[in-house]
Amino acid sequence: MTTVYPSIKRISGNNIASPLGYRAAGLHCGIKHKKNDLALLVSDVPAHAAGVYTTNAVQAAPLIVTKEAIDQSGMLQAMIVNSGNANACTGKQGFVDAKTMQQMTAEKLGIAPHLVGVASTGVIGEKMPMNCIKTGIPRLEPAPGLKGSIEFSQSILTTDTVSKNTAYKVDIDGKSITIAGTAKGSGMIHPNMATMLGFVTTDAAIESYHLHHALTSVVDRTFNSITVDGDTSTNDMVIVMANGLAQNDALSPAHPDWKVFVQTLLCVCEDLGKMIAKDGEGATKLIEVEVMGAVSDAEARSIAKSVVGSPLVKTAVFGCDANWGRILAAVGYSGATLDPNAIMIKIGDATVVEDGEPVAFSEEELLEYLKQPEIKLKVDVHQGDGHGLAWGCDLTYDYVQINASYRT
Amino acid sequence: MTTVYPSIKRISGNNIASPLGYRAAGLHCGIKHKKNDLALLVSDVPAHAAGVYTTNAVQAAPLIVTKEAIDQSGMLQAMIVNSGNANACTGKQGFVDAKTMQQMTAEKLGIAPHLVGVASTGVIGEKMPMNCIKTGIPRLEPAPGLKGSIEFSQSILTTDTVSKNTAYKVDIDGKSITIAGTAKGSGMIHPNMATMLGFVTTDAAIESYHLHHALTSVVDRTFNSITVDGDTSTNDMVIVMANGLAQNDALSPAHPDWKVFVQTLLCVCEDLGKMIAKDGEGATKLIEVEVMGAVSDAEARSIAKSVVGSPLVKTAVFGCDANWGRILAAVGYSGATLDPNAIMIKIGDATVVEDGEPVAFSEEELLEYLKQPEIKLKVDVHQGDGHGLAWGCDLTYDYVQINASYRT
Repeated sequence: MTTVYPSIKRISGNNIASPLGYRAAGLHCGIKHKKNDLALLVSDVPAHAAGVYTTNAVQAAPLIVTKEAIDQSGMLQAMIVNSGNANACTGKQGFVDAKTMQQMTAEKLGIAPHLVGVASTGVIGEKMPMNCIKTGIPRLEPAPGLKGSIEFSQSILTTDTVSKNTAYKVDIDGKSITIAGTAKGSGMIHPNMATMLGFVTTDAAIESYHLHHALTSVVDRTFNSITVDGDTSTNDMVIVMANGLAQNDALSPAHPDWKVFVQTLLCVCEDLGKMIAKDGEGATKLIEVEVMGAVSDAEARSIAKSVVGSPLVKTAVFGCDANWGRILAAVGYSGATLDPNAIMIKIGDATVVEDGEPVAFSEEELLEYLKQPEIKLKVDVHQGDGHGLAWGCDLTYDYVQINASYRT
Repeated sequence: MTTVYPSIKRISGNNIASPLGYRAAGLHCGIKHKKNDLALLVSDVPAHAAGVYTTNAVQAAPLIVTKEAIDQSGMLQAMIVNSGNANACTGKQGFVDAKTMQQMTAEKLGIAPHLVGVASTGVIGEKMPMNCIKTGIPRLEPAPGLKGSIEFSQSILTTDTVSKNTAYKVDIDGKSITIAGTAKGSGMIHPNMATMLGFVTTDAAIESYHLHHALTSVVDRTFNSITVDGDTSTNDMVIVMANGLAQNDALSPAHPDWKVFVQTLLCVCEDLGKMIAKDGEGATKLIEVEVMGAVSDAEARSIAKSVVGSPLVKTAVFGCDANWGRILAAVGYSGATLDPNAIMIKIGDATVVEDGEPVAFSEEELLEYLKQPEIKLKVDVHQGDGHGLAWGCDLTYDYVQINASYRT
């Protein structure tokens, strides 16, 4: 993404263990038939931690265990993650199992259990196959560098087709700090579709309280812009760990480099969010909706999410149909403050609606544009200065196929 | 639908002209290539009228013209309806065109223009082909009986595969009154998908004010239970006309038969709503979700709509997959008051979740059940006495196909 801070640089060694003092591992323990399904992320020292979690009233056991762990001291040193089984709707046994995963990992690493977070993704309502977990955890050998990180990012996937990694460097107090992230989510735009997990590591020094503040503000503009609030799976979570090994002065809103740190965290989360949207189940295209002129940034995001979440817009993009009427209808039902006669819509660079009415455009040029893998829609509602982005994907035959036969 | 009032009887002459004093017509005027696209409904005398309209901020011209007409005197005597062009996002010319449709119909019938309502459905943002309308209106010959009604109900369709009609008789003051309705909507559950139009006629005597009250309360439990509020097209409307020819004492909440009248209106609207859901674009199955035990009827409906609107539930039903986890997740993100450990879910008659956890069931029996054309899901959240229903359809390959290529 573009940024106004030239010191923020995307780096090519884009793996979760890029920041100082992190190690990772992943392997196949047998929950899934063949693919890797168990992953471990470790910091050499306890890290300040923050998390955001699903707003679904039905929350999976590992999520509650992780929340309690972070609440206890604001610190984490490790995340144990499995795919293939969500450990959701599994009752008391589910909690016992998530606690056992935490306990076993703590023992293996010789650290306190409350320094271990647990995340799970996969089928809902089936008991965790603990025999797999119990033989798997001892075999995990977290290592620095690319290999362990790749294994980690692959082991957390479900119907994802690619693993999702990004990393940025930025100077803070003249110290180079790194923020890296990995995520999974086969979800379409509304993550009621599938669990979204995000893990972010940094060697920056920052207290848990401020880290939580930074994460929350960034998640609203990234992961939650591929997420309609309240429309989330039982297992969604984004966890960030900051181990301080970069030895900068501890960050807080009073620090002169606070904004550049938050912006770097935003870069990481936006990259991951876009990768999730692009890898949506059955998706062939990434859709980015940018909204200007709303009465607030929040309303701009809400319009953008309304458009990018519309099944009719999504199928039209799949069909390379410049169907601006559906875009306009989705703007209309977003609930935002609007004057229907002041709406401008662009598909790519072509203006298709001005003052709420269609304007002439070349269908042929737009057909060519809509064949591209990344489609940009722009809306200006001319009501104020609010600006927002949202990301999603097209709705395709493959989405139906994947989801008509996922469980069986 | 079942009712506690045995005097309410569904009748077989289920057409919009069944009540006393109504005539209807429909024909092909050339907006569409071949199919009928222009329709007229007339009452012999001015009828008290009420309407509910889309909550979309972008509202089509005919909707505004109809609203103004009803607001002027609370009466309508005719509805002129076209399909193939929605006359939405058409600016000032759109209003001129809708007004012209109203004016021409009034002249033809020799009545005041404010007694004529206008409804349109079809492509958004293209100017109404007024030459078709202008040659079509004079040719409309509204007649009592089945033939004109059938033509009317066929002429208002877009991607609908069947026309939708129902009618009931009930005794009020010892007089037999009839309420009939027709509707179009190729929509899936969330009518952002397509315009929904509903027209209800009755010979009951009832003032516009009370009629509006009855309609609003009924629409919440019927059309709006296949509609998530704020998620509507630019053209949605439901209009009811009551011409009083049955000569009952004028109905109001003080009338001893008020409740039975409202219940009969509910029967008509529920039938039409279910027909719309069942004929959803690409649908192969009707899904009915019944929710019990919510803290209020409104929350029960909101849970039911959350479940029936979930793309993952819809694809699972298409795939005959007894995927209770997705149902539970959709209950969870409905925003309703919940105890995750007190949720019961049934697919057909088989309990699949009890106390928030899965219980053993026969996959084979449920597979057979899920092959049926009408699927019932039941949820009890054990929080109170709230009860609600919602209707929808499965999400299929054909839905994607229809909507990836609708405009072009």
